[in-house]
Amino acid sequence: MHDQKNERTLRQKRVQHSITTLQADACVITSPVNQFWLCGFVFDGYLLLYPEGEALLFVRRPAGIADERVIEIRKPELIPSLLRNAGLPLPHRLLLEADQLSFSSATRLQAAMEMPELVNFSWELRRLRAVKSAYELNQIRESALVHRQVYELIPSLYRKGMTDLELQIEIEREMRLHGSIGIFRSFGENMEIFMGSMLAGDNAQAASPFDYALGGRGISPLLPLGANGTKLVPGMTLMVDMAGNYRPWMDDMSRTFAIEEIPNVAREAHQLSIDIVHAIEQSSRAGTRCADLYHLAEKMVEEKGMHPYFMGTTQQAKFIGHGIGLEINEPPVLTPRSKEILEAGMAIAVEPKFVLPGIGAVGIENSYIVQENGLENITLCEEQIIVL
Amino acid sequence: MHDQKNERTLRQKRVQHSITTLQADACVITSPVNQFWLCGFVFDGYLLLYPEGEALLFVRRPAGIADERVIEIRKPELIPSLLRNAGLPLPHRLLLEADQLSFSSATRLQAAMEMPELVNFSWELRRLRAVKSAYELNQIRESALVHRQVYELIPSLYRKGMTDLELQIEIEREMRLHGSIGIFRSFGENMEIFMGSMLAGDNAQAASPFDYALGGRGISPLLPLGANGTKLVPGMTLMVDMAGNYRPWMDDMSRTFAIEEIPNVAREAHQLSIDIVHAIEQSSRAGTRCADLYHLAEKMVEEKGMHPYFMGTTQQAKFIGHGIGLEINEPPVLTPRSKEILEAGMAIAVEPKFVLPGIGAVGIENSYIVQENGLENITLCEEQIIVL
Repeated sequence: MHDQKNERTLRQKRVQHSITTLQADACVITSPVNQFWLCGFVFDGYLLLYPEGEALLFVRRPAGIADERVIEIRKPELIPSLLRNAGLPLPHRLLLEADQLSFSSATRLQAAMEMPELVNFSWELRRLRAVKSAYELNQIRESALVHRQVYELIPSLYRKGMTDLELQIEIEREMRLHGSIGIFRSFGENMEIFMGSMLAGDNAQAASPFDYALGGRGISPLLPLGANGTKLVPGMTLMVDMAGNYRPWMDDMSRTFAIEEIPNVAREAHQLSIDIVHAIEQSSRAGTRCADLYHLAEKMVEEKGMHPYFMGTTQQAKFIGHGIGLEINEPPVLTPRSKEILEAGMAIAVEPKFVLPGIGAVGIENSYIVQENGLENITLCEEQIIVL
Repeated sequence: MHDQKNERTLRQKRVQHSITTLQADACVITSPVNQFWLCGFVFDGYLLLYPEGEALLFVRRPAGIADERVIEIRKPELIPSLLRNAGLPLPHRLLLEADQLSFSSATRLQAAMEMPELVNFSWELRRLRAVKSAYELNQIRESALVHRQVYELIPSLYRKGMTDLELQIEIEREMRLHGSIGIFRSFGENMEIFMGSMLAGDNAQAASPFDYALGGRGISPLLPLGANGTKLVPGMTLMVDMAGNYRPWMDDMSRTFAIEEIPNVAREAHQLSIDIVHAIEQSSRAGTRCADLYHLAEKMVEEKGMHPYFMGTTQQAKFIGHGIGLEINEPPVLTPRSKEILEAGMAIAVEPKFVLPGIGAVGIENSYIVQENGLENITLCEEQIIVL
C-alpha cells in the first residue's frame, strides 16, 4: 500500500521551502484542495505552517478529527494566544491563498493575527502542485482508464431522437456508477461547471462567460455552459468533454461523435486536430516551452486556413492545453505568451478544437504525462470520429 | 408571460436604496448569483451601480452580449477613464461582495478604482434577496412540485441490496431528467456539496466540515459529505435530502425511508420531527421571531428527552431551518440567538432531524412561504416514513 503520509510530508517540505524562498514567516492554507493535498482531508479552519516543523491545524469543524496536530477553535481571534502559549512567534509576513480566500475572511484573519503583511501564495501553491509525484501521476493514469471505459459506452447509451442533454444525463449516470466524485473542481472565480460539457451543432458557437476551451449556452442562464437541449440530428457533430474525476487527481479527455453522415469538412478539421495533437506529442519533452507548442498548433491551423474556426468562432479561446490534477485547470497553460516550460512530472491536456458553423465542434483532447524524453499519452481511446 | 425586466428594475431600485442607506457612492456586483438576480445573466466582469440611474456592465466575457448597458473591457484598470469620459464620478466609498470576492480580486479592483474605501455588501444583498417577489415565490412553488414528483419515484428506483450511493445515482438521473440544473448553489466558503445528501444508517453520525444540517462521510476525502456507499439493509433508515434546483429559485425537502422493518424508536423520533414542523407551521407568520421557533423545537425535543440525538450526535447543528432561494442557505436562519424576524415574502425550510445510533437519521424537512397570516406549505408530499 502506498505511503500516503510520506507523500504529504514531502509536499509539506516543498511548501516550507517556498515559504523561505518568499522570505515569509508562515503560510495559512484554507482551500479544500490544498488542505487535502497537504493533510489528506478537508476541514473548516486554518492550516498554519512555519518554515520548519509540523503543521498546526486550527479546526472549527468537523469535531473529533483523529490527528494530533489538530487544535479545536471557534474563531481565528483565538490563534495568537494559542501560538504564544506554545512559544511560537506571530508571523509578520504571512502567505495565504489570496486568489481563493474571500476578502472578508482574509481581512478578518489579518486582524486576528495582529496585522501581518499578507502575500498571495495561490500561484506558488499551484506551481508546486503542477509537478506531480509518481503516486499522483498514477492516480491520473487510473482515472484515464476509467474515463475510457465510460466513453466506450456512449454508442450504447445513444438513442435516435435524443437531445444532447438526454445523452449527457445517461453519461453522467455511468460516470457516477464508475466512481466519479460528482463535483468537478476548477480554479478561479466565475469558473462554474457541472460534470463536464457536451456540445452539439451550433450550440458550440455560443460564447460563455467562463474560461474553458469552448462554450455552449447551457440549460439555464444561471449556468451558461455546455449542452442546451439541442436535438441530435443527422449531419451534426457532438463534442464530449465530460470530467475525468474518477480519482482525486483527474485526467481530461474529449472525443467527437457524428450523428450519421457528416460533411467532409468536419472530418478534415477533425483530422487536423489529431495531427496537431500528435505533432505536439512528438515534439514535447521536459524543457519544451509551452508557447512553442501553441505556435506549432497555430502554424498548422493557418496552413490549412482553419483559423476562423479554431477554438471557437464568436469567441476564441487563446490556449490549446492546460495542466491537470486536483483541479482541471492547473499550470502550465499552453498560450502564445506563456513563459512556462514543461517539467518532468507535469500532467497536461492538449485540446486543439474547431467549431464549424452549421455542423458543430470537432477535434480531440488527450492527457499526457511529461517525461524527461517525451510525452506519455494516458488517454488511449479511439481518436477518430465515432458515428452514432 | 412574466415581465422579467420589470422584476429586475425593482430589484435594482432596492439595491440602490441600500447604497444610499449605507452612505456609499456605488456598489460593484461580481458573483454569478447576484449578477443573475440583477441582470438575468452571468458574466465575467463588474456590474457597477450608482444610487441613481442604470447599471453599467463592464464585461470581459462573453463577447457579444445584446444589452446596451454592456461596456467591453479587458481589465478593471480601464474602468476609471471610462467613467470619467462618461462624466461619472469615481466612488470614494464602494460596496462589494466581500464574502464572495477573493482577496486578490478585491484589492486589485480597489487599486484600479483609485483606492476607494471598501465596504462589505454581501450580507445586505442576501437580506434583500431573502424577501421574494410573487414571481420568485412561484418559482420556488414550481420547483417543489417537481421535487415531489422525483421523490415519489424513489420506491420504484430502489432495488434490494443497493447501496445509498447506487440509489442516489438513480435519483440524480431522475432529477436531471426532471430539469435539475445540476450544480447546487450554497453561500459561503467551504460549503461544498454535489446534488444533495443521502444518509443511511450510521453514516448519518459522521461529522462533516460543512455547515449543513447533517453530515455523512461521502465517497472521497475531497468531498466529505453525504452517501458513503453504505449497503441498505433491513432495520436501517435512509434520509433523502436531494436538491430542489428545478428552477433558479430552489425549494428544499427531506423525507425518510425505511429499509423494511425499523425499530419503534425511529418511528417515534420521526413523529416528533413531524410534530415540531407542524407546531412551527401553526405558530409562525410575518413578525414571528426566528429564535422563538428554535426554542419551540428545543422545548419539544427536551420534553421527549431526545436532545442527545437532535440535529446529529457527534456534531450537532445549531439551527433547525433556513431561508431558501437562489442559494440553499439564505437568511433567515432559525437559531437560538437569531435576531431575525419572519417577513412576508420570505421562503424558509424547516428541518428538525434526529440521528439514531445503529439506525440512521429520521425526520422531515418542509419548505414554506411566509405569509402575513401564516406559513404556506409548498412541499405537499407524504410525511410519514416510506418503507422500501
